[in-house]
Amino acid sequence: MRDIVAFQGVHGAYSEQAVRQHFGDEVDVLPCADFSDLFENIQKETVKYCLLPVENAQAGAVNGAYELLMDYDLRIQAEVILHVHHNLLVVPGTKLEDIKFVRSHPQGLAQCERYLRRHNFKPVVWYDTAGSAKDLASENTPYTACIASKLAASLYNLEVLEPDIEDAPFNYTRFFVLGNDDPLPSDYNKTSIVFAVRHRPAALHECLGEFATRGINLTKIESRPRRNRPWEPIFYVDFEGYWQDEICQEALMKLLQKASFVKMLGSYPAVKTNSVGM
Amino acid sequence: MRDIVAFQGVHGAYSEQAVRQHFGDEVDVLPCADFSDLFENIQKETVKYCLLPVENAQAGAVNGAYELLMDYDLRIQAEVILHVHHNLLVVPGTKLEDIKFVRSHPQGLAQCERYLRRHNFKPVVWYDTAGSAKDLASENTPYTACIASKLAASLYNLEVLEPDIEDAPFNYTRFFVLGNDDPLPSDYNKTSIVFAVRHRPAALHECLGEFATRGINLTKIESRPRRNRPWEPIFYVDFEGYWQDEICQEALMKLLQKASFVKMLGSYPAVKTNSVGM
Repeated sequence: MRDIVAFQGVHGAYSEQAVRQHFGDEVDVLPCADFSDLFENIQKETVKYCLLPVENAQAGAVNGAYELLMDYDLRIQAEVILHVHHNLLVVPGTKLEDIKFVRSHPQGLAQCERYLRRHNFKPVVWYDTAGSAKDLASENTPYTACIASKLAASLYNLEVLEPDIEDAPFNYTRFFVLGNDDPLPSDYNKTSIVFAVRHRPAALHECLGEFATRGINLTKIESRPRRNRPWEPIFYVDFEGYWQDEICQEALMKLLQKASFVKMLGSYPAVKTNSVGM
Repeated sequence: MRDIVAFQGVHGAYSEQAVRQHFGDEVDVLPCADFSDLFENIQKETVKYCLLPVENAQAGAVNGAYELLMDYDLRIQAEVILHVHHNLLVVPGTKLEDIKFVRSHPQGLAQCERYLRRHNFKPVVWYDTAGSAKDLASENTPYTACIASKLAASLYNLEVLEPDIEDAPFNYTRFFVLGNDDPLPSDYNKTSIVFAVRHRPAALHECLGEFATRGINLTKIESRPRRNRPWEPIFYVDFEGYWQDEICQEALMKLLQKASFVKMLGSYPAVKTNSVGM
């Protein structure tokens, strides 16, 4: 039986592209309305994995994603880095000079802001990028184009009038593949944790010292207000290494001893980039 | 002449509430279409200050805000912390049982998700929270309510059918007041900086050590991909203290010597919360 992988959005979403980039055609997909449905579907075992976007090079953290990682007890299976290309899609036959309105999700519109301004297109907020393609194809609204993926174009029989219309060339989105397994190590691994420090001076610096003194590279750090206690920060940290590596075990044990709590999000095969350590 | 303060959104936006919370009725306001207009208006000196939302306790960082702080050379004048209350607004006379659709900005809808589900209201994405109030008042669409501020209700003559419908009680948004001045210190100050580290092991830990060893409390830390060099992180850090305090000067000088670059976003009177240091 083929595994099912859930993603947020409708068919043709960038998240579905990320599923295909990681799993190829070996899996079936399940579109979900929101991020929490991704987690629920894994808990109910209706799907084996899901793809959760966590960071975008242009827009920063994805709202709500890290909060869900904190609330549920899934394990990160892998990371996927998708180079996002936005495309201007139209009902076949529509010409550039016919277009007055361009629909997309606010984030898609924001990432093509200069392009839209240059052409004097009026942005129209839609609930979803791929949804804007789906609706345009079924309604055939005049003077209207949308911004979505090439996958959406082919699924809904739209024409790619202009490809790669994003303003910034470095438009990467980082996803986590989530599931219940504990993945085996590969050549290059990362570990993601959440922790809070105890109330004492320089507590964060002391906790990070457990990694620094062992030569463990951090690749992400972020403090966020704790939702039910907004004045107590929690820290989301990614570091290079597998949890069973000797120095990682040592650092984690020391952290556990010093921190208020530590939650393991996963230790997983990661994508080698030209990433500079911290 | 009264100072003018720019905010993003239409009249009645939560940002306008934040302007009033900080400045009272001593200033005039200018609504702007997007965040970059806030910065442009200060550069053109059409306004003296602007309010930029930077973090929300529920949703994390505000997309794009920190990138603009990096791109422009404004100075943070003060921080404002607004307790956001969402309200169900209707055209006067509409009853709860008449409502089928509820409009708001995706963030407003997300923060009232459980409330909407409980009442079986269908969420309808609008470009703006206050904009959903403005449009509802002028169109008088049947079966429809919107989620916006009390300020929006009074501005557009809508009725607050249910106040405080947000799912989570700790719904705070943090704003920066931006301008060109260098503010004087108050009783309690914070300093916000951006920096990148040089490529060497444990570089971040070493930089943070300059603060930790001097007993300077951090109140925020976040790594983000550099937009044009996504694999090199930059760090946004807030710490307690005024830049001319002796220990702050020392720490900043040492950081300057160690870092790849340091950019000062401002040293400003801050809001005393029960915030736990790092």
